[in-house]
Amino acid sequence: MRQAGRYLPEYNATRKRAGDFLSLCKNPELACEVTLQPIDRFGFDAAILFSDILTIPDALGLGLYFEQGEGPKFQRRIENDSDISGLGRIDPTVELRYVADAVSTIKRALNQRVPLIGFSGSPWTLACYMINGGGSSDDFLGVRKWMYSRPDALQQLLEKLSVAVADYLIMQIEAGADAVMVFDSWGGFLPEAHFERFSQKHIKIIVDRVHAASISIRQRQGQTDGQPTPVIVFVKGGGQWLESIAATGAQAVGLDWTTHLGQARSRVGSRCALQGNLDPATLLGAPPHIEAEVARTLESFGPVSAGAGHIFNLGHGISQFTPPENVSCLVEAVANYSKKLR
Amino acid sequence: MRQAGRYLPEYNATRKRAGDFLSLCKNPELACEVTLQPIDRFGFDAAILFSDILTIPDALGLGLYFEQGEGPKFQRRIENDSDISGLGRIDPTVELRYVADAVSTIKRALNQRVPLIGFSGSPWTLACYMINGGGSSDDFLGVRKWMYSRPDALQQLLEKLSVAVADYLIMQIEAGADAVMVFDSWGGFLPEAHFERFSQKHIKIIVDRVHAASISIRQRQGQTDGQPTPVIVFVKGGGQWLESIAATGAQAVGLDWTTHLGQARSRVGSRCALQGNLDPATLLGAPPHIEAEVARTLESFGPVSAGAGHIFNLGHGISQFTPPENVSCLVEAVANYSKKLR
Repeated sequence: MRQAGRYLPEYNATRKRAGDFLSLCKNPELACEVTLQPIDRFGFDAAILFSDILTIPDALGLGLYFEQGEGPKFQRRIENDSDISGLGRIDPTVELRYVADAVSTIKRALNQRVPLIGFSGSPWTLACYMINGGGSSDDFLGVRKWMYSRPDALQQLLEKLSVAVADYLIMQIEAGADAVMVFDSWGGFLPEAHFERFSQKHIKIIVDRVHAASISIRQRQGQTDGQPTPVIVFVKGGGQWLESIAATGAQAVGLDWTTHLGQARSRVGSRCALQGNLDPATLLGAPPHIEAEVARTLESFGPVSAGAGHIFNLGHGISQFTPPENVSCLVEAVANYSKKLR
Repeated sequence: MRQAGRYLPEYNATRKRAGDFLSLCKNPELACEVTLQPIDRFGFDAAILFSDILTIPDALGLGLYFEQGEGPKFQRRIENDSDISGLGRIDPTVELRYVADAVSTIKRALNQRVPLIGFSGSPWTLACYMINGGGSSDDFLGVRKWMYSRPDALQQLLEKLSVAVADYLIMQIEAGADAVMVFDSWGGFLPEAHFERFSQKHIKIIVDRVHAASISIRQRQGQTDGQPTPVIVFVKGGGQWLESIAATGAQAVGLDWTTHLGQARSRVGSRCALQGNLDPATLLGAPPHIEAEVARTLESFGPVSAGAGHIFNLGHGISQFTPPENVSCLVEAVANYSKKLR
């Protein structure tokens, strides 16, 4: 999840210099600056590329923008078949060059301190925004309608997006990302019967392509272990479909705060590590509650083992109203308690 | 789920006469009229009281209103401990008399044609709206904060609401409701670790009280089987917690469209019937898709048996954009296919 954000005064200062959120994403030097701020302040174990999950539809010409206090919006929506067939194949090294530049700038600045995680939205989640033109207050009902009225057109869109997302993540790895994460923020709105067809299948294609490409990229970069770059898949609201999510081949699966970590572990076994899953609202609470929730989360996972590790994380994005000192309290509690427990 | 609504021209005509949505809820004659409209048009097997899940906070003095095109809002929010201690115990036969009147008016008009289902929001879901002052675009983050900052005050609010909801449902049964449903529309936003404490526990108290009271009400009404009135519990997003939801003692559990009916059944066994779970977006699609989804839903449940029946239903509310002829197509498909299958 995004580490930098409006809860940090130093972030707000840099963002002011950039002008707005999207200009900040598109400025490699400033994106690097805000990526490193939470690492400097809190000493996290990994850095998260500062960017947005919707850079691909923006590069495809839909015109991403953010209105004051609102979520992301697009100037143009996908409304029909010809909108879909009109979408070209982007070359991310051209149209999304600013992301590759941000990754390499951050890697240089990190200087091996901690690994860097890149990311993208999943095809289904990108399609939700592209068809709806922005967020939704009705679980993307209008996008779900496509499954029952024009499923072939929807599949065509998802296939195009799968290609773009894989190209994009491979570019991030070329530029230096040590792991990449796929955010299926709206996967949990899919009906159980159609999650695999409209989301999981496309994520699996991406994981396969990223794995294959990353083995040769890593070899060229001098890493001779023959291992692919780790991919983390997060499906918000996907707790009922963990087995299917693990079957994408991702090395780690992210969990939101509605799933029991220990039960998740017994379901996916040693197929993948698990990442999560503290309720972000915890960080709006009082320190004793933060400590208790950290202990509960670590205990619910239990002892770590090979192939079934635990990456402590929030179950969703951090709130802009989070007091930074609560994040310090969290980091300290995780470090102390996991040392004791593990 | 609500059967009457803006997708029906006859509903819009009655609503126009009432003035607005809330005036329609509060007018027993007109509420009766719109309750019966979908029964007349589609021949459903049960009628749903036309009302709102937020009548209790309105009766508690929070001032429910609906802005054009927006969800429910309250003039006053619950902001602190004294707001909670200031909440009195309502007598639903006084403050919510219009609901009892609607129920008895509808019962008379139905004249035994089909049973009537009453309902209320769950304590957690009512608390979400009462603290937030309306709907939420961030999974009620500000309400979840209370769990980590003032859990005792939150529990106090939930306890008061449990009493009010049970009183209210018992009143609906006194007035003639043949079954009652508890909607925990926002239960799925709770963390796994706290669902039982902040929602399930309170629903269980309500189910117990409704069961106990309904046995004597039914006896007084001349029904001598000693059975309690059926209670249906629906937790949107609660698919991971079915065992816990079934443990409330509800005779039926409602499922949204993200849960596999057959798997749900094998988890709850014969403890309760299951209700659901067609994706409401299906009704925005083409008839062949509607028929295919009906077949898939019925097949996924499999053959019905004693104590483990299936109530065919949508997995959430019907969209205002639903073409009424698609609902006819649905009803026909369910009748035909379930006759063939069962």
